[in-house]
Amino acid sequence: MTADILIRNVRPFGGQLSDLYIRDGWFAERGRQKAAVEIDGGGQIALPGLVEAHTHLDKTLVGMDWFENRVGPTRNERILADRRAKRELGIDARRQSMRQIMQTLAFGVMHVRSHVDVDTEIGIANIEGVVETRDKVKDLVDVQIVAFPQSGMLVREGTLALMEEAIKAGADIVGGIDPASIDRDPVRHLDAIFSLADRYQKPIDIHLHEPGDLGAFCLELILERTRALSLQGKVMVSHAYCLGMLDPQRQRSLIDALAAERIAVMTVGSPSAPALPLRVLLQSGVVMASGSDGIQGTWEPWGNGDMLERAKYLAQRNGMTNDADLKETAGICTFGGAEGIGLTHYGLLEGCRGDLVLVPARTLAEAVALTPQKRTVIRRGQVVARDGMLCGGPQHIG
Amino acid sequence: MTADILIRNVRPFGGQLSDLYIRDGWFAERGRQKAAVEIDGGGQIALPGLVEAHTHLDKTLVGMDWFENRVGPTRNERILADRRAKRELGIDARRQSMRQIMQTLAFGVMHVRSHVDVDTEIGIANIEGVVETRDKVKDLVDVQIVAFPQSGMLVREGTLALMEEAIKAGADIVGGIDPASIDRDPVRHLDAIFSLADRYQKPIDIHLHEPGDLGAFCLELILERTRALSLQGKVMVSHAYCLGMLDPQRQRSLIDALAAERIAVMTVGSPSAPALPLRVLLQSGVVMASGSDGIQGTWEPWGNGDMLERAKYLAQRNGMTNDADLKETAGICTFGGAEGIGLTHYGLLEGCRGDLVLVPARTLAEAVALTPQKRTVIRRGQVVARDGMLCGGPQHIG
Repeated sequence: MTADILIRNVRPFGGQLSDLYIRDGWFAERGRQKAAVEIDGGGQIALPGLVEAHTHLDKTLVGMDWFENRVGPTRNERILADRRAKRELGIDARRQSMRQIMQTLAFGVMHVRSHVDVDTEIGIANIEGVVETRDKVKDLVDVQIVAFPQSGMLVREGTLALMEEAIKAGADIVGGIDPASIDRDPVRHLDAIFSLADRYQKPIDIHLHEPGDLGAFCLELILERTRALSLQGKVMVSHAYCLGMLDPQRQRSLIDALAAERIAVMTVGSPSAPALPLRVLLQSGVVMASGSDGIQGTWEPWGNGDMLERAKYLAQRNGMTNDADLKETAGICTFGGAEGIGLTHYGLLEGCRGDLVLVPARTLAEAVALTPQKRTVIRRGQVVARDGMLCGGPQHIG
Repeated sequence: MTADILIRNVRPFGGQLSDLYIRDGWFAERGRQKAAVEIDGGGQIALPGLVEAHTHLDKTLVGMDWFENRVGPTRNERILADRRAKRELGIDARRQSMRQIMQTLAFGVMHVRSHVDVDTEIGIANIEGVVETRDKVKDLVDVQIVAFPQSGMLVREGTLALMEEAIKAGADIVGGIDPASIDRDPVRHLDAIFSLADRYQKPIDIHLHEPGDLGAFCLELILERTRALSLQGKVMVSHAYCLGMLDPQRQRSLIDALAAERIAVMTVGSPSAPALPLRVLLQSGVVMASGSDGIQGTWEPWGNGDMLERAKYLAQRNGMTNDADLKETAGICTFGGAEGIGLTHYGLLEGCRGDLVLVPARTLAEAVALTPQKRTVIRRGQVVARDGMLCGGPQHIG
């Protein structure tokens, strides 16, 4: 049980100045007694814990030697380079996942969904590494693990069995990837992962880079299976570039169907991939989440995992420059992500978990546009980072 | 005359470890005498002064109250909002240009080309303000001023005469904007600015947002006039989105013509505007420069003016993730920009001006991908910023 904490003078999600109170790790009505701990927020913006809905904790090279990237531009070249790097660089999934999680906790990221590779070379070693990290950090950060067949599933004999092993070893979610262009058989790929999810009562999260009408067809197959197995609210489609490549009418009908089946869409707002119709998706009621994807890995050399900066990228990619726009993209990186990955008791209201981030900015829009770094991070009523630096020292850094 | 300075153990543009020597403000061969000042670079990356080839110093709101952006999405709505903000917020061009320049000097930006508004409401007041700043900072930063008819030129009677006044008041370059879609008469618009440039022997820098074939037509008119007046190497086209919207053959022939007339192209790599074919432009020998455009203004709420971060954005927008790619985009923000805005004696070789930035990174690619902030900035042999903080205090901050 933690001490009560009163956080004065903050603007919850950019709203009116108010005080927030956390008792026993939960937002609560303020009692008559003086709180054990008081913080003056000085007008800062208070956000609920930032939600990283899509990353690859087992692939970051943070803290390792510089990786000289000479990789070709195609997805297959990148998958090959990625597999080679795992062998040759000795990327330790346990250590690297811990490094990324600690780096992003200082930004206020307290909920992380990570895809973790499962393949016939490494088996479920990466799953085991990230499970270890997940257990170690559970008081600080919620980690969800997706068993992810990065190198293909049906095309690599034995991968599906490993996916099942991964679930038994502690993976929370069944992953999938490009049922047509990588796995070469959309129906069998989707049947396999939906069946696995159904058997173990797990949610699903599918990487879908398939372009245009091919992607739309795969989305239809996903919709059919979600409906058939009553998995509404349990399926996320990551990237879904095809939604930005269709004629408006077809786009519209697919988006309406996604909203109806409560299938969430995750976009990182990549500047070089097709832009999703973000406004249409939001207005149609599709649950939108976002993520950093891999940070500082063999795929891309950049990225810091700051989900407030991600809200800026989403706005920039979509030409959204209004204060109201930035509130929308901040929403994607908090409430949208929380709903997309199935968090409960999320938010700044009484009855929610006592997690929040204080951002030194005058308005929510300024917080998104300038992403100030000197944040205060409070987890379950305890201050875990001040001025953008983790408190408590290196005992967590595994 | 400044003291000699020896900078040991640095990697010029990411190359082999070496020492750099600056005598009397110029890179020089190292003499036998001990240098008055010695710095150990500790293996950091040395870059020549970063080049900001396109910004709007008179429009930034840095350090002012938060501007709540409720502006509509069209260019005309934004131009109107921009003009209203100048009236209502009392943006002081002298003070604001100084703030931006000092902020970006700490990143290592030592060469700035700024478009500065000229219109029938403010006249040349903004030009005068930025001229004052330019004179004040001349030992620290080179500032070039473009007389910029943001609100239109022919469509606003009297603007052309003000442009000429702006040149007489110290503007270095003749600007232009969307000859067709804003000024409604591409031939007369371009004839007017080319004639003004010819009369005063000034370079030209044109904002060209015109899309597709309309933009291509305007580019042809610009090419014809550049050829007719022998202005090769004196013309820059800013944005030039149309280059990313044409069929490959038409794109190719225009790009070859731009290279032949040595017309430079400036792109900010905006995530929401059409992407230019960066690789084709570079391979074709077109001089490529980049800039931040407006930072923290009424157009867009974000931006810090760091031209090393800009190199990252350019790579991200174009899906360039290789170390070699990042060297190319770093080149655009240094050598390309320098050539585009007509700097001489630029670079890290003997005989060049003694300007450099030390970036704490292991490779040039890491410097671009992670944009470390704790840089050392040396101008004409004198350290003007350490650890990303300006030395010398507030006497420069106007």
